[in-house]
Amino acid sequence: MTDEREPIRVGVLGARGRMGLEVCKAVDAADDLELVAMVDQGDWLFNASDAGAQVLVDFTTPDVVMDNLHWAVDQGISVVVGTSGFTNQRLDRVRSWLSHKPGVGVLIAPNFGLGAVLMMQFAARAARYFESVEIIEQHHPRKLDAPSGTAVHTAKLIGAARAEAGLGAMPDATKEETSGARGAEIEGVRIHSIRAAGLVAHQEVLFGTKGETLTIRHDSLDRASFMPGVLLAVRTIQSRPGLTLGLDALLD
Amino acid sequence: MTDEREPIRVGVLGARGRMGLEVCKAVDAADDLELVAMVDQGDWLFNASDAGAQVLVDFTTPDVVMDNLHWAVDQGISVVVGTSGFTNQRLDRVRSWLSHKPGVGVLIAPNFGLGAVLMMQFAARAARYFESVEIIEQHHPRKLDAPSGTAVHTAKLIGAARAEAGLGAMPDATKEETSGARGAEIEGVRIHSIRAAGLVAHQEVLFGTKGETLTIRHDSLDRASFMPGVLLAVRTIQSRPGLTLGLDALLD
Amino acid sequence: MTDEREPIRVGVLGARGRMGLEVCKAVDAADDLELVAMVDQGDWLFNASDAGAQVLVDFTTPDVVMDNLHWAVDQGISVVVGTSGFTNQRLDRVRSWLSHKPGVGVLIAPNFGLGAVLMMQFAARAARYFESVEIIEQHHPRKLDAPSGTAVHTAKLIGAARAEAGLGAMPDATKEETSGARGAEIEGVRIHSIRAAGLVAHQEVLFGTKGETLTIRHDSLDRASFMPGVLLAVRTIQSRPGLTLGLDALLD
Amino acid sequence: MTDEREPIRVGVLGARGRMGLEVCKAVDAADDLELVAMVDQGDWLFNASDAGAQVLVDFTTPDVVMDNLHWAVDQGISVVVGTSGFTNQRLDRVRSWLSHKPGVGVLIAPNFGLGAVLMMQFAARAARYFESVEIIEQHHPRKLDAPSGTAVHTAKLIGAARAEAGLGAMPDATKEETSGARGAEIEGVRIHSIRAAGLVAHQEVLFGTKGETLTIRHDSLDRASFMPGVLLAVRTIQSRPGLTLGLDALLD
Repeated sequence: MTDEREPIRVGVLGARGRMGLEVCKAVDAADDLELVAMVDQGDWLFNASDAGAQVLVDFTTPDVVMDNLHWAVDQGISVVVGTSGFTNQRLDRVRSWLSHKPGVGVLIAPNFGLGAVLMMQFAARAARYFESVEIIEQHHPRKLDAPSGTAVHTAKLIGAARAEAGLGAMPDATKEETSGARGAEIEGVRIHSIRAAGLVAHQEVLFGTKGETLTIRHDSLDRASFMPGVLLAVRTIQSRPGLTLGLDALLD
Repeated sequence: MTDEREPIRVGVLGARGRMGLEVCKAVDAADDLELVAMVDQGDWLFNASDAGAQVLVDFTTPDVVMDNLHWAVDQGISVVVGTSGFTNQRLDRVRSWLSHKPGVGVLIAPNFGLGAVLMMQFAARAARYFESVEIIEQHHPRKLDAPSGTAVHTAKLIGAARAEAGLGAMPDATKEETSGARGAEIEGVRIHSIRAAGLVAHQEVLFGTKGETLTIRHDSLDRASFMPGVLLAVRTIQSRPGLTLGLDALLD
Repeated sequence: MTDEREPIRVGVLGARGRMGLEVCKAVDAADDLELVAMVDQGDWLFNASDAGAQVLVDFTTPDVVMDNLHWAVDQGISVVVGTSGFTNQRLDRVRSWLSHKPGVGVLIAPNFGLGAVLMMQFAARAARYFESVEIIEQHHPRKLDAPSGTAVHTAKLIGAARAEAGLGAMPDATKEETSGARGAEIEGVRIHSIRAAGLVAHQEVLFGTKGETLTIRHDSLDRASFMPGVLLAVRTIQSRPGLTLGLDALLD
Repeated sequence: MTDEREPIRVGVLGARGRMGLEVCKAVDAADDLELVAMVDQGDWLFNASDAGAQVLVDFTTPDVVMDNLHWAVDQGISVVVGTSGFTNQRLDRVRSWLSHKPGVGVLIAPNFGLGAVLMMQFAARAARYFESVEIIEQHHPRKLDAPSGTAVHTAKLIGAARAEAGLGAMPDATKEETSGARGAEIEGVRIHSIRAAGLVAHQEVLFGTKGETLTIRHDSLDRASFMPGVLLAVRTIQSRPGLTLGLDALLD
């Protein structure tokens, strides 16, 4: 059992990657957390358990994250995961591992930025009140995929909220379109992906109805912005057994 | 008792003003509402009761609105009020009138734009998660007051949320300030009021914390944008006896 | 010869259309202009010459504008044209008509908003200094074409400026794209077309280079915004014989 | 005389400061420039002349920059200056030193970001066409002064352009103002200074006239954004004898 007054013992997997390094720094700087293991390619996972880690943070790659998770759950260690590539099939496997370890929690989140999470919550909530909504996401030009995962996730939340509210298709009289002008369509929501030097990671959700628009915009300028979300997850995951998807569940 | 299939009978006070005229058109265009009285300066209020109005909409002026309300409550007619100038003292008087008429409802709202109401809700909810927040409101140059009532109301909501979350003062190292540069301070929140030709009514709430910002922006281009909120209030006020403040209570 | 002290006598073609009506009102309200003819479908063009029109303003349709122009140039009347649909071939025909009438001026402009014209000038000027540039245009959902004519024109100006400065392709590592996400490509410039209720006519040109972005945005909320540009053209076209393209030439 | 094929020999004063360090890296990375001296507090200025520096870059502090400049001009070395604190009196002294050294050039610029310089140029050019204009500048909360130097400089440019065009005061009906809401007034132009965590350095110039607005916005996220401007100055200063103020003069 964790004594409230003892710091939580944290291990980081992918500790030499860009995100992993930030996590190590953030854990190290927090009074109520103790960084006990930094593990990366070529290191033994057992370093983490030997060091008494109670919570692991995994920012590794899709090809190793499942092995890491299987091992950690077996060891009874809770995990906060920022690695991408989780299909429904993968999530089911994690759930089945967890079903044998009732005290262990795993949180998998596509985005640890509190601002991004709030943007998605607000977008889902506003969706029912507006005829139209489109998403404009803007990123640095080194990004490989378009649209971003966050934009696709937002579109799905909006699409579901519109369907639930019984809203039909959005008004759009476009007759002549140069291919691509109207963006990509995900769950009936148009997404536009801007890629330009000087940008970092930005997203705007534009809602419109007769005579007014409501815009929710998130600008992320620095990986440091993800750390409050990661630490929040580290601090709460032990009291949330089973699989948790997204940071949303931890707000309020 | 209102039969669900019968249209609600609506009277408009201030019917020849800019907002009143829009309300008349909107009520007239709605199948489930019937416009039975248009009252303005010089007309008898009894025109409205004689016509069998069940709900009144008041977009008049601070100097007549209290008399209108007193009369309507006495008559047992519910009222939706968009007129400004309600102090706590005035609200108490309305409450006391209503206490003798248990079946009558009065809704007083500073803003009937659904987008504006959502902006304020989201701002109140986001407030606890960010170190900094400032409000930038932009209006046409004919506006008499700065900041706008909506901005002041937003600042109060944010101030209360920050206090509840135990947040202290925002970081601000300003040493040399040309007077006014840092805006007006309401409940510890800075508000900046832009006035320019070409603008209509806009507000931006900017939240910031290490490495990220979240911006919630509302643009209102047309009085028509207030009508969905007015009609929502007209349709529900008879089932909400007593005094209701703000459109928020009617969402969800 | 026009006496400076006499008002310029103006006829409007397409006078009952939305833009034509605005032009009639604006001409009527200007002390130095006199509205002498309002012509629309079914009216004789000769009404305009009989009334002594010195300048015509044409906001009609692509199928009649060429006949209007041919007739006016023959009559020795200068014309300000806001009608769309001018191909290079059409422009050549106008030039050939004008070559026989050395005193007559024709101005054809895709956009009479001074703000839009300045946006395009600034975009053309900034283009050489930035690695990346994309255009985001936002319009009401009744618009038939995507991208807008103004966006396409802006992209062409930027493309030409980049070519002249010897800039190559923009950086873009996109490997996986949901069809349409990256927008339409015009002269190597990506354009994204947003269509939503509540919008009127807006365009943003986003330039980016290492560590900084420059954004030029134009918001047009009202057809009235085009009138200063139309009147400027009406006042100067008689002193600009031949064909003039775009309002740019009249600024400075 | 500089041989075009030889790299320009560059010394950096304030080489261990944040900006100086960036300059050293940028010079070092440029093929046509050679970093020959890095001078900071406690080092001899003669290190720079001994190393044969042809151009110095000064990012030091107001209390030493005048001595540095005096010495460099005496030595016949051209200087690019990013240090702040130049009054008209100081500029006159620099001009008098230069008057005795006809081959030496000094450039003093408040901002080396090309985007910021273009923003100011565009703002000055647009100023005559709009009734209203206000400036909104947004910076991190560690900034000491409000408004920013760039905002004040922009206001002065706009004020001068409005005066030259004969524009009077902007429309503003404000009657009741909570102190500070309408910002600081510099040369008749209102400036609003936002300070929030998560921001870096941003400025928006908003122009408005009947029915339309034009917004020019600059976002600077990284000191690296100033380097292209510094290098442009280093490459051209030897061919611009005398005192040059602002990067503007070097564009086109």
